[in-house]
Amino acid sequence: MTRLSENGFDVTADLLEDMARGAAFLGAGGGGDPYLGAMTALHAIQTYGAPHCVPASAIGDDDPVYTAAMMGAPTVMVEKLTGIEEVEAAIAALERVMGKPAKAILPAEIGGLNALVPVAVAAKRGLPLIDADGMGRAFPELQMVTFAVDGVSTSPLAVCNEHGEYHVINARNNKASEDAARRLVIEMGAAVGVSCYPMDGATAKRSAVHGTLSLAYGIGKAISDGRRRGDPFDSLIAYLKSTDYYNKCGIIFSGKVVDLDRRTERGFTLGACKVLSNEGDGSELEVIYQNEYLRARVGDRTLAIVPDLTCILDAETAEPITTEGLRYGQRVKVMGVSCAPVMRSKAALDLFGPRAFGLDEPFRPVEDLIVAA
Amino acid sequence: MTRLSENGFDVTADLLEDMARGAAFLGAGGGGDPYLGAMTALHAIQTYGAPHCVPASAIGDDDPVYTAAMMGAPTVMVEKLTGIEEVEAAIAALERVMGKPAKAILPAEIGGLNALVPVAVAAKRGLPLIDADGMGRAFPELQMVTFAVDGVSTSPLAVCNEHGEYHVINARNNKASEDAARRLVIEMGAAVGVSCYPMDGATAKRSAVHGTLSLAYGIGKAISDGRRRGDPFDSLIAYLKSTDYYNKCGIIFSGKVVDLDRRTERGFTLGACKVLSNEGDGSELEVIYQNEYLRARVGDRTLAIVPDLTCILDAETAEPITTEGLRYGQRVKVMGVSCAPVMRSKAALDLFGPRAFGLDEPFRPVEDLIVAA
Repeated sequence: MTRLSENGFDVTADLLEDMARGAAFLGAGGGGDPYLGAMTALHAIQTYGAPHCVPASAIGDDDPVYTAAMMGAPTVMVEKLTGIEEVEAAIAALERVMGKPAKAILPAEIGGLNALVPVAVAAKRGLPLIDADGMGRAFPELQMVTFAVDGVSTSPLAVCNEHGEYHVINARNNKASEDAARRLVIEMGAAVGVSCYPMDGATAKRSAVHGTLSLAYGIGKAISDGRRRGDPFDSLIAYLKSTDYYNKCGIIFSGKVVDLDRRTERGFTLGACKVLSNEGDGSELEVIYQNEYLRARVGDRTLAIVPDLTCILDAETAEPITTEGLRYGQRVKVMGVSCAPVMRSKAALDLFGPRAFGLDEPFRPVEDLIVAA
Repeated sequence: MTRLSENGFDVTADLLEDMARGAAFLGAGGGGDPYLGAMTALHAIQTYGAPHCVPASAIGDDDPVYTAAMMGAPTVMVEKLTGIEEVEAAIAALERVMGKPAKAILPAEIGGLNALVPVAVAAKRGLPLIDADGMGRAFPELQMVTFAVDGVSTSPLAVCNEHGEYHVINARNNKASEDAARRLVIEMGAAVGVSCYPMDGATAKRSAVHGTLSLAYGIGKAISDGRRRGDPFDSLIAYLKSTDYYNKCGIIFSGKVVDLDRRTERGFTLGACKVLSNEGDGSELEVIYQNEYLRARVGDRTLAIVPDLTCILDAETAEPITTEGLRYGQRVKVMGVSCAPVMRSKAALDLFGPRAFGLDEPFRPVEDLIVAA
């Protein structure tokens, strides 16, 4: 099994397709379509050269680190061309406010589009890219990151859109930052560049989920390799079981998408889909989402719930399907996958556990739910 | 008739009561309760000394000039203590962005609370206060100023609230600045400090409505003086007729408030009131408002319409009544008053004429409407 060097590697163009596929998987349905991000990263790499991806430990403790991401509704992001100019402008606005130029770029979210956007920004800026992110998956709101669990402030935060509009937020807490930024993002066209949680290298080392860019690549490559051998799910599951974070996993349901409710509201993609079982027993799996898949349930039996990952994949190719890519009639397999252990602490669950999404049930680890099933 | 020196005067504590009353009149129902502003200004003058108010011509062409105002729904502003700290913090945020410390403070709006807020800020900062503003009255939205008519950009714009939250907006045009700021203001508690339209002295000279702080004082004093003599309306009208801007004026209706619809929506105080005539003929005047009184009408006959001022005053004392001060059963006189000529240009009417408020009729000068009546 190919592994990237843990001491750093260049994000060359040949890695992008697998990295994007793995990021789509880790997006758990959200984070935007990573293939748009891959195209943007490819263009940046061809123009500026491959950025060097390093573990956080390679960054100086005092080095200013800036996150790079797109923010908005994935349904809108797929209708707009993703430019890294907006993300760069957001970082530049934040650098002016902080009075410190960036020494490294840190992904905020490894799931989906936002895994690849920092690759493009790091290439263009000629800065090291940290092999880590703030969640090891995707989440719909800015405060839902391990940085916040660790006490890092979302503010100051900068958002910028394709019209050159940019706004700098200094809110009283992380949820207020999210609320203020979300109001602006809707006003700005529901897809913008954002940089937030400005921090130093020491903080990045302490508060990030590490190695996730490498893991995204590994996941994507396991699917590609398996596809060539005709067993993408076996290959994917074998790779996941070899990782530190995603090793509790399994296929929890196989069937056909028979019901699809999807709407863009409050700047999010909201809704639910139903999958009718292949078993012929008439059982249905309901998956609800807010940008990301939040919970998979048969009747009142939960099979996977945030922050663990619920992933929907094409039943033949194991291609990850995002919330905006769901279609009536698709044949799918639904997987439950454990999140990074740091994401399951009490403080972490307060920020992005079931109740943070309005779900009235406690978090239970996917390994318990699948065994119980 | 007492007049302040046109070459500059100190805004001493003894001027505040009349200045606030005149500002309430020019607020045309909006701009917030000026007596809150007067209390704030009084405290600042007692602590820091009286600020010197000068004509714009006394300011250097290159001197950085910053506006100072509160923004939000007047209905909320009367429920919160007005602190100048929020306005100061907004100016400070804008000074950092512009990289230029303020050399003078300019009122954005002379009507209501926002006439007195700059007095307090100028006192505390020890800066000259320019005897001018951007409308010679009050208006509900940021882009509705002569600065905008003259091509000055609302952005960068800073808003700050009592929790120390501050956000800096850079929007693509003035209406987009208003929309973005309004979203944030609602999020921030519907009453915040704002500084916008950063400009130089030359621009202030060219684009402001001049002499309006002096005029506010003069109007307030005419009411007070007249009240002591028992003829506040005669005194007020005589003074208005002696001014350059407000000289076309008259009482257009006298009666009793019999219907009152007032709601806080989209960050504004919206609604309409009806006044039943004293004449015993059953005729009713309808006055509609968005923070400010926009139009006075009997049946389908308009008697005053924006940007001309519709003012509602207590029938005995000529005390101006704001939209949030309207009460069922009040005996009132309603006045129509001409606005500054610069406010009636085609470009100005596009920004704050009837159609800018969704009213489907052209602007007609109050002098034509009153004569016609």
